[in-house]
Amino acid sequence: MEKIHVGTGRSYDVYIGRGILENVGSCLKESGAGKAVLVCGENVFPLYAEKINLALEKEGFKVFDFIIEPGEASKSLETYGKLLEFLCEKELTRSDMLIALGGGVTGDLTGFAAATYQRGIGFIQIPTTLLAMVDSSVGGKTAVNLSGGKNRAGAFWQPSAVLCDPDTLRTLPEREYRSGMAEVIKYGVLGSRAFFDELAGDIPCSHEHIIGTCVKMKRDIVAEDEFDTGKRRLLNLGHSFGHAIEALSEFKMTHGEAVSAGTAIIARASAAMGYMAESEAGSIIKCLKKYGLPTETGYSKEEIERFVRMDKKLSGDTISLAVPREIGSCDIIGVPLGDIPRWLSLGGVK
Amino acid sequence: MEKIHVGTGRSYDVYIGRGILENVGSCLKESGAGKAVLVCGENVFPLYAEKINLALEKEGFKVFDFIIEPGEASKSLETYGKLLEFLCEKELTRSDMLIALGGGVTGDLTGFAAATYQRGIGFIQIPTTLLAMVDSSVGGKTAVNLSGGKNRAGAFWQPSAVLCDPDTLRTLPEREYRSGMAEVIKYGVLGSRAFFDELAGDIPCSHEHIIGTCVKMKRDIVAEDEFDTGKRRLLNLGHSFGHAIEALSEFKMTHGEAVSAGTAIIARASAAMGYMAESEAGSIIKCLKKYGLPTETGYSKEEIERFVRMDKKLSGDTISLAVPREIGSCDIIGVPLGDIPRWLSLGGVK
Repeated sequence: MEKIHVGTGRSYDVYIGRGILENVGSCLKESGAGKAVLVCGENVFPLYAEKINLALEKEGFKVFDFIIEPGEASKSLETYGKLLEFLCEKELTRSDMLIALGGGVTGDLTGFAAATYQRGIGFIQIPTTLLAMVDSSVGGKTAVNLSGGKNRAGAFWQPSAVLCDPDTLRTLPEREYRSGMAEVIKYGVLGSRAFFDELAGDIPCSHEHIIGTCVKMKRDIVAEDEFDTGKRRLLNLGHSFGHAIEALSEFKMTHGEAVSAGTAIIARASAAMGYMAESEAGSIIKCLKKYGLPTETGYSKEEIERFVRMDKKLSGDTISLAVPREIGSCDIIGVPLGDIPRWLSLGGVK
Repeated sequence: MEKIHVGTGRSYDVYIGRGILENVGSCLKESGAGKAVLVCGENVFPLYAEKINLALEKEGFKVFDFIIEPGEASKSLETYGKLLEFLCEKELTRSDMLIALGGGVTGDLTGFAAATYQRGIGFIQIPTTLLAMVDSSVGGKTAVNLSGGKNRAGAFWQPSAVLCDPDTLRTLPEREYRSGMAEVIKYGVLGSRAFFDELAGDIPCSHEHIIGTCVKMKRDIVAEDEFDTGKRRLLNLGHSFGHAIEALSEFKMTHGEAVSAGTAIIARASAAMGYMAESEAGSIIKCLKKYGLPTETGYSKEEIERFVRMDKKLSGDTISLAVPREIGSCDIIGVPLGDIPRWLSLGGVK
């Protein structure tokens, strides 16, 4: 088991290890909570919820289950409101806890409820997807979607602990696993050539190694920029265009697939503008393809640009783009919105 | 004009002065915002909104008005959701601003939307009630109500600036003005005998003096305890029972009236338990009466206790009560819930 300390405003630990789900009991014990609400998608619930409920009850906690429908539609103000009312109904106090068991949707929704119920109570992340383990469960970003866009309402709120059990990835559908790999590759491109080479190479990496490496990289970046005003924007590599593509697909593409296409576009554009060698862009695209991820999009420049204009990273008429300079190094560049079609064009978008 | 610096996590200034509403233009100019959304109750809108809109447009800002129905019912997840969608629709970015013009309902709702739209954008408080000037507009507590209770969802989010124009109190209904005085008297009881004596005395205090004194006291307390885990609970004097009474009245009593009754109860109970001299409790009750505020309640011990059990200040089975020891000094005492009926009884509740 690996224990990684995350030193944000409120610090916490990420535990990575096979079979550690049951540790949730001791995590909660440290917190002094008496009650816990477990939030879980109805697909994940039959797989792991019983084990967790039993572990908690053994330690003397009162546990209530709040089951949500799987998928992005649950990351809404409506489900958020229902969850808050549920917490009231079960009379949770500020010293009690929420537990998010599942993927990014469950984690983001539960985190936002924890951030705002009685102006903030503790919560534990138990991610069961690769994407959630390496990305959304660390860093304290919580959110729900509005009709006006994804993650439009939310808060920065750090979990009390994160438990990653790689064994849960065994039940993950192949397509979701690949989507997680898009974010994993992103970490290599933005900050570590050695890690990228491992991913691109012939020897398969262990899940523990992949998760641990990504969490540590994210931890170091977030520690420098908890509130996403500077260095943290590196993590947005592939996302400015990726979010637009994901929205255009009406979420038929997964987040990871869209990020993969977005990463390929920005890599091509960076090379075409002379920021990065052509061969580096080629290696990035080859690695994405190795994991069965898309590197093209059928959407037009105009369509993508329209959604980029609604990005949260906008400040007035300029957008912060994470642009790779070589594998393992990336810059944040402020790009006027008017230049976006040119970037897209150079990135291979029709 | 008085300028008071508030040094919380993110510091800001409170401006107090007659006719300073129009300063909102220069406040926004400093922020670098391009757009602003003015949130305002439909009763306050015709009084001051035009002046503010003009001041902002003169400085080159694009202003959109979001008008809400006056009253507690607007402090809901429903209005909150509509406001968030409105911000999306007007394409506000993280560098833009919200402005809350009105009383506590407007300020709390707008603040919560600002705290959570795109994980946080700036907002300016322009309180137009005495209660909002001396209490809710300073300190960074934002919230909406749930069916399970008042202020159950919210966040700590500091405003960028607070503008208090005492001239706006001239249009305030008498009953609302008196309600504000309950919170003003609270400040005297919890922290300053000199201020209490001024309020209890025969020479009327100026609004500027009252607002300035309360804001500075609140500022000093909040600076020591931004997230309400210690000293800040002093501000809760009269509120543990007051909130219960307010809820029992189904909000037919104003917040200030309920706090007045709650303050009288805790003053009597404190004296009866030997924490404070009887004469001090008498002076507190006399002062509340001087401003036409209630010092009794028709609700029973059992009714009040039931609502106290749902208080946010609960930690497990203990509640933190702010108990006056003398006028100008107050302690936080952890009271087991089981002792609450006795406190109420000694406080004169049947």
